[in-house]
Amino acid sequence: MDAPPWMRQQGAPAAGAHYGVPSPYEKGVVRRTRGVAKFPTAASSGTPLQDLHGIITPNGLHYERHHAGVPAIDPDAHRLLIHGLVDRPLIFTIDDIVRFPSVSRIHFLECSGNTPEFRDAKPGWTPQDTHGLLSCCEWTGVPLSTLLDEVGVRVSARWILAEGADAAAMTRSIPIEKALDDAIVAYAQNGERLRPEQGYPLRLFLPGFEGNMSVKWLRRLKVGDQPFETREETSKYTDLMPDGKARQFTFVMEAKSVITRPAGGQQLRDPGFHEITGLAWSGRGRVAGVDVSTDGGTSWMPAALQEPVLPKCLTRFRLPWTWDGGPALLQSRAVDETGYVQPPKQMLVDVRGLNSGYHFNAQQIWRIAQGGAVTNVV
Amino acid sequence: MDAPPWMRQQGAPAAGAHYGVPSPYEKGVVRRTRGVAKFPTAASSGTPLQDLHGIITPNGLHYERHHAGVPAIDPDAHRLLIHGLVDRPLIFTIDDIVRFPSVSRIHFLECSGNTPEFRDAKPGWTPQDTHGLLSCCEWTGVPLSTLLDEVGVRVSARWILAEGADAAAMTRSIPIEKALDDAIVAYAQNGERLRPEQGYPLRLFLPGFEGNMSVKWLRRLKVGDQPFETREETSKYTDLMPDGKARQFTFVMEAKSVITRPAGGQQLRDPGFHEITGLAWSGRGRVAGVDVSTDGGTSWMPAALQEPVLPKCLTRFRLPWTWDGGPALLQSRAVDETGYVQPPKQMLVDVRGLNSGYHFNAQQIWRIAQGGAVTNVV
Repeated sequence: MDAPPWMRQQGAPAAGAHYGVPSPYEKGVVRRTRGVAKFPTAASSGTPLQDLHGIITPNGLHYERHHAGVPAIDPDAHRLLIHGLVDRPLIFTIDDIVRFPSVSRIHFLECSGNTPEFRDAKPGWTPQDTHGLLSCCEWTGVPLSTLLDEVGVRVSARWILAEGADAAAMTRSIPIEKALDDAIVAYAQNGERLRPEQGYPLRLFLPGFEGNMSVKWLRRLKVGDQPFETREETSKYTDLMPDGKARQFTFVMEAKSVITRPAGGQQLRDPGFHEITGLAWSGRGRVAGVDVSTDGGTSWMPAALQEPVLPKCLTRFRLPWTWDGGPALLQSRAVDETGYVQPPKQMLVDVRGLNSGYHFNAQQIWRIAQGGAVTNVV
Repeated sequence: MDAPPWMRQQGAPAAGAHYGVPSPYEKGVVRRTRGVAKFPTAASSGTPLQDLHGIITPNGLHYERHHAGVPAIDPDAHRLLIHGLVDRPLIFTIDDIVRFPSVSRIHFLECSGNTPEFRDAKPGWTPQDTHGLLSCCEWTGVPLSTLLDEVGVRVSARWILAEGADAAAMTRSIPIEKALDDAIVAYAQNGERLRPEQGYPLRLFLPGFEGNMSVKWLRRLKVGDQPFETREETSKYTDLMPDGKARQFTFVMEAKSVITRPAGGQQLRDPGFHEITGLAWSGRGRVAGVDVSTDGGTSWMPAALQEPVLPKCLTRFRLPWTWDGGPALLQSRAVDETGYVQPPKQMLVDVRGLNSGYHFNAQQIWRIAQGGAVTNVV
């Protein structure tokens, strides 16, 4: 092979003090918003899952969901107040928080409104459209239990109100059991400090719980003896059932999976070998297995899981496949360590009905047409 | 607490199609070059380890080492040729490579010239200065063994020449055992495609081996029956011993560790609790343990290792410590699963002498002065 033009001249100097950016040839790999937001500060943007590999989401592509935009917070002026049913109400600076013993854990985060296929779905949708409000980072912070020890939680404590320092003053009630289990007050993601759209300089992180509860820009924790019944856990983030009653406090993101390649919006080049790959996760712990069907759910094959398989973390699965060039229906189902099996859509709808836009975790089906075009099965 | 100004107005809209960037308050957290490079395209820049948490290095902060700058490669025009002692010489496009079965693994990468303390060390140095040519990402690609199967490696094959598509045409010889073991031809890091300064669109990745051998911008692999004796494995990247002979092919990065906080360039605020934390790694497998001393190596305490502890991967260690406000000497020593113990500097120098700038893996000592200023012990 002749030397290409880029071997015939010196390249660019080391980026050094410039924070690195992707190749200009990758400019299409960005977060995207489905449709046009009515209010640009109450919006979301999805991770381009179809373009990603492995399990880590780079910080620049972590999904967003804001209720009143991204506040520009001066970390030196930011404070966290912990009060309510505590012996010693305390106000912490960021330096105070960072000085505590820390933990780092790789966890997924998923918006409970991810996959809005109860009521809305389009054939042209890609994994970014169907499942993009899902990302996975290494989060570092202080165990919330450590901070609660510091303030001295009273025995009557049952719930904790978490409040964000955005203009929405996002507030959610957290059960004390979760707060004392694996909740983190996080200041870093993938090594560096939180990105502004992920709660810089401080966020709550509740592994396996719906994303909205991992309150960003965390400024206040109030310990109480009952849930605080905020707007975001009454009129929003509840699951309206077919009988008109709403399920409240459905915190855990149940086992779910999606094939990211081949997937909607893609075009298979030609028949022969194609690796089927995707992501599986469960808010209840580890993924125990993922089965893949290429014939619409008639037969299933176990996919290989990429090690390490971590709790409440994305798991990459892969299955070798030979495409014969004809039509096919691809779908995956995750099983988690509790034995829970990701349901087909009809099974989910039979129970949940079509009133709710939250916690849709049914099996995703992609249709491969003769010729290789892949579309979303609506 | 009164509502801060950023709660009194809507924040910025979702970043959406803009690739995300850190908070402007974090603008000091960037890669840095020690001193001024004589030739800006033959330079390096180090990861700001003292500012990072956990084990993942964000792609924008991955260390750099270039011999002729960063080539601007059009991925559609890039090719990988595999030839030499093979049955079917083949040329692959990037699409060809991505179509093969893939693997993802979290591994460290370290320049063998990292930690130049054999001959050069300054009291003002930070972990970025002493150990910054070290990073850790999730790498995704095709096992090199899969590609070698595809071309049909002949039984006489012993070494493989890897050539980069930069103006240095970086070339190194890889033993066939490593190529068939865990070598990857990688196209992604931390989920997204490689960054330009990490070899976009394709690099070799040899877990645990000195960084220079993980040839970036990979364009050619030639299978042979002996090493190719390139410039970068004869006059460079060999270890000149005290007797004037050079050790060649010292590929593996031996067990090493560094405390990143408290560390050089930092200032302890006040006496009391301080978490001692740092990173440990070994090119031979998993880190089995890390001991920490705060009294110059007289007594040692075992640090906690953050799970998961992965092979040939950074491992975050932590030890709670109460600083009495007086002078202290902080150091760590890693032990890997082979039983190898990271040596003190004098033990290393007794064997290796002071002729070589590569593979310095001695224990790093930080001095805490009365008052809390931390400096590098030279």
